[in-house]
Amino acid sequence: MSEYKIALVGFGGVNRGLAQLIAERNAAWQAELGFSLKIVGVTDLFLGSIMNRDGLDAAQLVALPAAKGAFAELPGGTAEAFNETIIKQSGADIIAEATFTNPVDGEPAATFCRWALESGKHVVTTNKGPIALHGTELKALAERNGVAFEYEGSVMSGTPVIRMARQTLPGAVITGFEGILNGTSNYVLTRMEEGLSFADAVRQAQELGYAEADPTADVEGFDVRLKVVILANELLDARLQVSDVRCSGISGLSAADLEQARQAGARWKLIGSAQRQADGSVCASVEARRLDNGHPLAGISGATNAVSFNTELLGAVTVSGPGAGRIETAFALLSDIVAIHTAHAQR
Amino acid sequence: MSEYKIALVGFGGVNRGLAQLIAERNAAWQAELGFSLKIVGVTDLFLGSIMNRDGLDAAQLVALPAAKGAFAELPGGTAEAFNETIIKQSGADIIAEATFTNPVDGEPAATFCRWALESGKHVVTTNKGPIALHGTELKALAERNGVAFEYEGSVMSGTPVIRMARQTLPGAVITGFEGILNGTSNYVLTRMEEGLSFADAVRQAQELGYAEADPTADVEGFDVRLKVVILANELLDARLQVSDVRCSGISGLSAADLEQARQAGARWKLIGSAQRQADGSVCASVEARRLDNGHPLAGISGATNAVSFNTELLGAVTVSGPGAGRIETAFALLSDIVAIHTAHAQR
Repeated sequence: MSEYKIALVGFGGVNRGLAQLIAERNAAWQAELGFSLKIVGVTDLFLGSIMNRDGLDAAQLVALPAAKGAFAELPGGTAEAFNETIIKQSGADIIAEATFTNPVDGEPAATFCRWALESGKHVVTTNKGPIALHGTELKALAERNGVAFEYEGSVMSGTPVIRMARQTLPGAVITGFEGILNGTSNYVLTRMEEGLSFADAVRQAQELGYAEADPTADVEGFDVRLKVVILANELLDARLQVSDVRCSGISGLSAADLEQARQAGARWKLIGSAQRQADGSVCASVEARRLDNGHPLAGISGATNAVSFNTELLGAVTVSGPGAGRIETAFALLSDIVAIHTAHAQR
Repeated sequence: MSEYKIALVGFGGVNRGLAQLIAERNAAWQAELGFSLKIVGVTDLFLGSIMNRDGLDAAQLVALPAAKGAFAELPGGTAEAFNETIIKQSGADIIAEATFTNPVDGEPAATFCRWALESGKHVVTTNKGPIALHGTELKALAERNGVAFEYEGSVMSGTPVIRMARQTLPGAVITGFEGILNGTSNYVLTRMEEGLSFADAVRQAQELGYAEADPTADVEGFDVRLKVVILANELLDARLQVSDVRCSGISGLSAADLEQARQAGARWKLIGSAQRQADGSVCASVEARRLDNGHPLAGISGATNAVSFNTELLGAVTVSGPGAGRIETAFALLSDIVAIHTAHAQR
């Protein structure tokens, strides 16, 4: 039986979801997964921070109001976010990083990851920024410090895609992939197929909380582009930077385009893809594509995400599931911890 | 760098496919997977047998005609199938069992597996019979002898389903699954949606080599039932026997039923499924079901197979891919060997 001490960096929906799972399931995990988790620190730029090497009450953390400086209300808590202290000095074995994604330089999340890895702590993260923008550096840093750097949740929240490729497809030879990697834009397209205009479909997505006030990153493909970089570098051993991926979105599509496709037995989808070329290089893009209904991704509707791996030995193998959600994304962190535990237990 | 000695039991399409992969890719596997394979014996009830502890020429084996007693043509070969000798005395580390499935008692494949496991050899198999009918006994036998018993290919050929659940979903809590687990019946349904009668669609499937001369096992659900038993026992820790799974097929459906479904935004599919009940027991069935087009399995057409895992934390996670094919199924054996190598390397 193992117990891992964990510190949570960022305490929005995802790490709150993880705390909730810990509050509800820690005892079951001991039997089911062979370990339990003890939260020893939490820090959040908005809420403040709290630390206790003997363990914090997960249920109490979950119940904390989302108010500025709220951690000051708890015994030992403070309204200030002592990120570096929590990461380096809370006694954590594992840092769960789930702050916001900064698509320009990946900060401050990348620095949080660096601090953790340099201090010999495993890092699990659901944040696209650090891995898409600093993946090579951070992986090397983890390697040098003999710790794990896991980021399953950075692509499709809890739906396993990186780990599926790594663990179940060695030898099948992945030559490329195509993915529906943004639930908002896929939801918008699905509504447009019912006759809504692009603008009305976006408004509906906003009302349902699927789309941000500024939906640009979702509908213009910028969110997908980061995920394509992560997957291409992971699955195809590419060395892509974000600027290597040409990117366009779905805002140019009309309800008439979608109806025309329907009549031809096809559907428009926002596809992030990468393919290995004959010269060994990898070519990647994000763009709206008209897929015949027989295509493995044509049937993926609404907020569901999916990746279709193209392989030499199996042809297309496709995985689909949720691409967002707080508990779903918190599960990604759990699955990363399971992987760390499995590797550790086998050593 | 490891080398595993392997003996092939049954030399039809699947193990011939594995021999072909070995002939073509062994050198690449050393770099890519960290091991290579050496075939030290082959036995087949129709072709005879051959053994050489120093290794047989994989390309020569692949080129062997499919004629009765053909192994007698090769130096050291014989027209007789010395199954027990090849399994126990060829010096193999791993036995690749890919004989025909006997749905009544799983023999002689189950005996081949027993011989191998008792002799301290790992077993990889694509055969539904041994695991569906003797799974508990054979897993215990492998455990007692400290060897692996792997059977990824018994459910969806090379498409990872057992390993995906085991490796990527721990903690998500699988509560059940639904699957399209027979390519022939799914192909028949897809053709019937184009207006063909059941009988004509079956005839087309036979002409294309998808369906056997006697298509009963495919279209009446008996093939799926074995796969449901395997998955339920594996994923839900059920102790189901084949007779516990109620089973009906698609022969009662008409083209008119399918057209009616289409008009209602739905599709008929042959679904194998199992669900954990409130009392902890597992209830499983095979039956034709009308699925709304939004269902994750509704879009699976033609000979593709798919399983949708129902989970507490992620909702539905679905994997789809080929469900048959000689190279695809041979890959399942390779993926089992990769798993054995990974477990061995970490010890």
